[in-house]
Amino acid sequence: AGSLWLYRWYYSNLCQRVLGFTIFLILALAFVEFPSSFTRTADVRYRSQPWQPPCGLTETIEALCMLVFLVDLSVKGYLVGQAQLQENLWLLSYFVVLVVSMVDWIISLSLACGEPLRVRRLLRPFFLLQNSSMMKKTLKCIRWSLPEMASVGLLLTIHLCLFTIFGMLLFSIGEKDETQNKERLAYFRNLPEALTSLLILLTTSNNPDVMIPAYIQNRAYALFFISFTLIGSLFLMNLLTAIIYNQFRGYLMKSLQTSLFRRRLGARAAYEVLVSTAGLAGATPEAVGVNPENFLRVLQKTQLHSDHKQAIMQKVHSYEGRPMLADEFQKLFDEVDKGVIKEHPPMPQYQSPFLQSAQFIFSHHYFDYLGNLIALGNLVSICVFLVLDSNLMPGERDDFALGILDHVFVLYYLLEVLLKVFALGLRGYLSYRSNVFDGLLTIVLLVLEISALAVYRLPNSRWKPDHYGPLSLWDMTQLVNTMIVFRFLRIIPNVKPIAVVASTILGLIQNLRAFGGILVVAYYVFAIAGINLFRGLIVPPGNGSLVLNNRSALCGSFEQLNYWSNNFDDFAAALITLWNVMVVNNWQVFLDAYRRYSGPWSIVYFLLWWLVSSVIWINLFLALLLENFLHRWDPQSYKQLLVGTRQ
Amino acid sequence: AGSLWLYRWYYSNLCQRVLGFTIFLILALAFVEFPSSFTRTADVRYRSQPWQPPCGLTETIEALCMLVFLVDLSVKGYLVGQAQLQENLWLLSYFVVLVVSMVDWIISLSLACGEPLRVRRLLRPFFLLQNSSMMKKTLKCIRWSLPEMASVGLLLTIHLCLFTIFGMLLFSIGEKDETQNKERLAYFRNLPEALTSLLILLTTSNNPDVMIPAYIQNRAYALFFISFTLIGSLFLMNLLTAIIYNQFRGYLMKSLQTSLFRRRLGARAAYEVLVSTAGLAGATPEAVGVNPENFLRVLQKTQLHSDHKQAIMQKVHSYEGRPMLADEFQKLFDEVDKGVIKEHPPMPQYQSPFLQSAQFIFSHHYFDYLGNLIALGNLVSICVFLVLDSNLMPGERDDFALGILDHVFVLYYLLEVLLKVFALGLRGYLSYRSNVFDGLLTIVLLVLEISALAVYRLPNSRWKPDHYGPLSLWDMTQLVNTMIVFRFLRIIPNVKPIAVVASTILGLIQNLRAFGGILVVAYYVFAIAGINLFRGLIVPPGNGSLVLNNRSALCGSFEQLNYWSNNFDDFAAALITLWNVMVVNNWQVFLDAYRRYSGPWSIVYFLLWWLVSSVIWINLFLALLLENFLHRWDPQSYKQLLVGTRQ
Repeated sequence: AGSLWLYRWYYSNLCQRVLGFTIFLILALAFVEFPSSFTRTADVRYRSQPWQPPCGLTETIEALCMLVFLVDLSVKGYLVGQAQLQENLWLLSYFVVLVVSMVDWIISLSLACGEPLRVRRLLRPFFLLQNSSMMKKTLKCIRWSLPEMASVGLLLTIHLCLFTIFGMLLFSIGEKDETQNKERLAYFRNLPEALTSLLILLTTSNNPDVMIPAYIQNRAYALFFISFTLIGSLFLMNLLTAIIYNQFRGYLMKSLQTSLFRRRLGARAAYEVLVSTAGLAGATPEAVGVNPENFLRVLQKTQLHSDHKQAIMQKVHSYEGRPMLADEFQKLFDEVDKGVIKEHPPMPQYQSPFLQSAQFIFSHHYFDYLGNLIALGNLVSICVFLVLDSNLMPGERDDFALGILDHVFVLYYLLEVLLKVFALGLRGYLSYRSNVFDGLLTIVLLVLEISALAVYRLPNSRWKPDHYGPLSLWDMTQLVNTMIVFRFLRIIPNVKPIAVVASTILGLIQNLRAFGGILVVAYYVFAIAGINLFRGLIVPPGNGSLVLNNRSALCGSFEQLNYWSNNFDDFAAALITLWNVMVVNNWQVFLDAYRRYSGPWSIVYFLLWWLVSSVIWINLFLALLLENFLHRWDPQSYKQLLVGTRQ
Repeated sequence: AGSLWLYRWYYSNLCQRVLGFTIFLILALAFVEFPSSFTRTADVRYRSQPWQPPCGLTETIEALCMLVFLVDLSVKGYLVGQAQLQENLWLLSYFVVLVVSMVDWIISLSLACGEPLRVRRLLRPFFLLQNSSMMKKTLKCIRWSLPEMASVGLLLTIHLCLFTIFGMLLFSIGEKDETQNKERLAYFRNLPEALTSLLILLTTSNNPDVMIPAYIQNRAYALFFISFTLIGSLFLMNLLTAIIYNQFRGYLMKSLQTSLFRRRLGARAAYEVLVSTAGLAGATPEAVGVNPENFLRVLQKTQLHSDHKQAIMQKVHSYEGRPMLADEFQKLFDEVDKGVIKEHPPMPQYQSPFLQSAQFIFSHHYFDYLGNLIALGNLVSICVFLVLDSNLMPGERDDFALGILDHVFVLYYLLEVLLKVFALGLRGYLSYRSNVFDGLLTIVLLVLEISALAVYRLPNSRWKPDHYGPLSLWDMTQLVNTMIVFRFLRIIPNVKPIAVVASTILGLIQNLRAFGGILVVAYYVFAIAGINLFRGLIVPPGNGSLVLNNRSALCGSFEQLNYWSNNFDDFAAALITLWNVMVVNNWQVFLDAYRRYSGPWSIVYFLLWWLVSSVIWINLFLALLLENFLHRWDPQSYKQLLVGTRQ
């Protein structure tokens, strides 16, 4: 009974939330720790000295977090039991990671935070990983598809090598006139250079450029590059997508089947328990089954969503008190799968016929349409002013009309909120999510407008509000006004085909948590590794001659493109740099710059990141998306599959 | 009987090949016609005056082709019949296209080829389209998925517009200090500019660049661009893939089912006919069925692959002359689906035990492995020389060792061919496709080496063959030597996982014909339209100051990047330009250049091409690939589906 209580306590909402918050906290520490990310810009030329936390501050928080993890580990270990503990690799490595982190923490403190390498930072994402079963499953799925991916990888390598050799021979052919061998000098200078050029062409990142020098000499050379891209990018890279999708399709299906099977097993076990207690009273063969009253009493104590509970109870009542058979008992729990249609509170009753007709008008959905129309008008007015102002300098603009219009629109939004509250009642109004958003937006807008009025007085002709501070009140008002843009999103559910697509995206986001987690882990590990490898390597050009230096840099180079802020000097900057490499476009600039600043081996880091993020993760994401969409659009065959396993 | 004969004649191999060749011819005319593509380079700066065909040459060929099409149309119309003819939209538009082409042809001749616009060139791809039923089906499938794609397109538009307005407001906020509003000046100058910037960001083609000016000012601005890319590129663009895949999946399945159903219907009809002829002789109820002898006689006259015929005949003989029932008759044709295992001719018999053991050795597959190993050695030696020579100018290189090595390798390849012919016999040798390739390669290499020997004499130390002509004999030898690279591909079937993947790719290529055709149609139409719109607009910079002008051009512009050869001045150049836009990377350069050279409306052309090629076609291709792979890897569920429809 004690361990059952512990189990219940451990899996209670509070406990899991504390654990989740701890994980979030220890991960977020990376922004604060040395090198901290608290600067306005990440550009090495303009960056100020960031605030650094004193030694011991982040370490204390870390110690607290590790204490929580220690408790978590011991509870989990106790619940799993001694015998299974030794076989559970995840728990064992959890233990190892905790021990290593603690040893590293002690070393860190004893060196007064001056240690050169903090191993525990690299290990932190493990805490996130081990806490989510979905992420563990996804990792397993990736591991299963690795052999097939390796075979495509091998094909890709062969493809790359063959074309490299072929290309080098091809471009060395017409080489006797030294003026014309630009191609060889530019992209096929030597073997590693040629390999890198074609590898980047595989991601199409240097597409027209790499073929230009050869193509200028002879049209036919274009065929070499086109066939390389066709085979490599179109066939082999998409093959990776197919492989991952194929592996993943079965995986999601199996995981769904498993969870359904577990639930049915649980329901059956509950049935057996409940039957046996009923059987004690005095069983006739006809009366075998679960007594509804017993069941309802048990149901009250379970942790189910109240709407689902309600639905199950209604169904139980429909059996009119006779004992339920196993099949009926199972069917009860199908209610959990059904979507709950939220009922809105009743509208307030007014006596006067005038009020009643007003209520009818303002609760009608045409009134919503009118609101959307006004929001659209607001949007259009903003656009018009943007177009009118685009050629004027900020000092020359006339903000009078825009100021007046803003006031008018805010007044209308306020009126709309009040009328809707009158028509639906406050609780009815708040039961719609779109209304909550509108209401909040209106209130924030109102507060800002009123304070703007208090500061700048009423707008008048040639009226110019002062702009002071980095983000003045006027700017703030404008910014919140742009939020009106999002009001526009309310239109989406009104258009049928868009609504289907949008609802699928929303449904997808829920399934996305595990994938997001894996992406977070990958980003974290690579960012920390990148900080350790490349911190401080990107140095600003000699000061004083900033502009000149910029001009003299080669076109398309890191320096000319002003990529100075894409460095690994702190955690936030590293994340953005990794994002830019993940998007792949122009990543050859990063490869080239880091080769120059830190050495030729930096290419390994970027290649690994490209493989993990762009090749594996993006394909995984596409697979998830395809899977979700196909299920949503073809639920028939999907249900059939689940039924098929039941038999 | 006459129309049956006509039908047979029309669908005979000869007729269909003539028709196919005619279509190929009329499409290929675009390379020859004014503006013809017969220049060495497409670069406007270095391009020589191309040869232009005299007026009437291409027109005569065109007239002949149209005559063939006229015959094709009348035969098709006769076969379809009067009643169906009026309902068959494809045939009607075939007629209209032919008439328009002829009228245009007459106008062209009467103006002595000086007409400003040739409409019939735009219409030519129609001949390709109407001749392939698969392409018509694919087009239908695309048309079906258009509504759903339009809804995603609408979402994309809303997404784009909202972020544009939001971005313009955001970047106009900190605008009072004029020195720092680079972002607004660079990418968000005015509404169309901002819209274009974000549209290009949707294809990630300007990814780090567009965020750099804002990101330098404040780290937080990066979130704007990241969330835009996340929603737009990752969610909405992949949604398009999902939609097309979903539509396409059903379509391929249905088309397969239909063709299977048709075959079964045909078999059943054949059975009924054959039964009725047998029934005339004198039917007892037990002997109902098809007489095998009758069937074999009919089978001889059908146009089936001889291997399939053989297999069916074997199966018929297994029934030992008793009449076949309907079910057995159907099963006969399942043989057609089965793969044919090609039998190689028997090896020659030698008397002497020495010859026998030699035959055993050289026909063993270890001998193949040795050949592959030698090919690998050849490859490695080429690589070594490439690495060694990479830092030397062509004049300084010592070609002696490479020349000797080439001779040695060619001698070995010759020996290998001879030994294999000895072991397997000539017919046995030629029955392996890989051997045919090797043999041809060896003979070409041998001829080249011998002629090289005759010209340059035996290699000696410090030996330097003369290089003369654009492609000297020595270059030719080197080039063919690089073909050895492809020998290496023979290894693939020996490695299991690669073999699976490679065989799937080969299988895919057969299914790809319809898609390739649609791509050809799209390229053709857009290339011709592009030639009519943009020919001669890209003019070289003022002559004399080529290098200077290049330096003074803005970094990342069309001129600085030397994209001069990406123009629409002739058909071949237009194709390459369209390919470069299809690959999407750096397409903003094209947009910008053509806006400057030809006006703001050119963006419509490029946008349309992006939508057709990159968005629709690439997704279609991915869908085809996924479909093929999933079927190949999961044939069980696939067969089940076919069986399911049979019941």
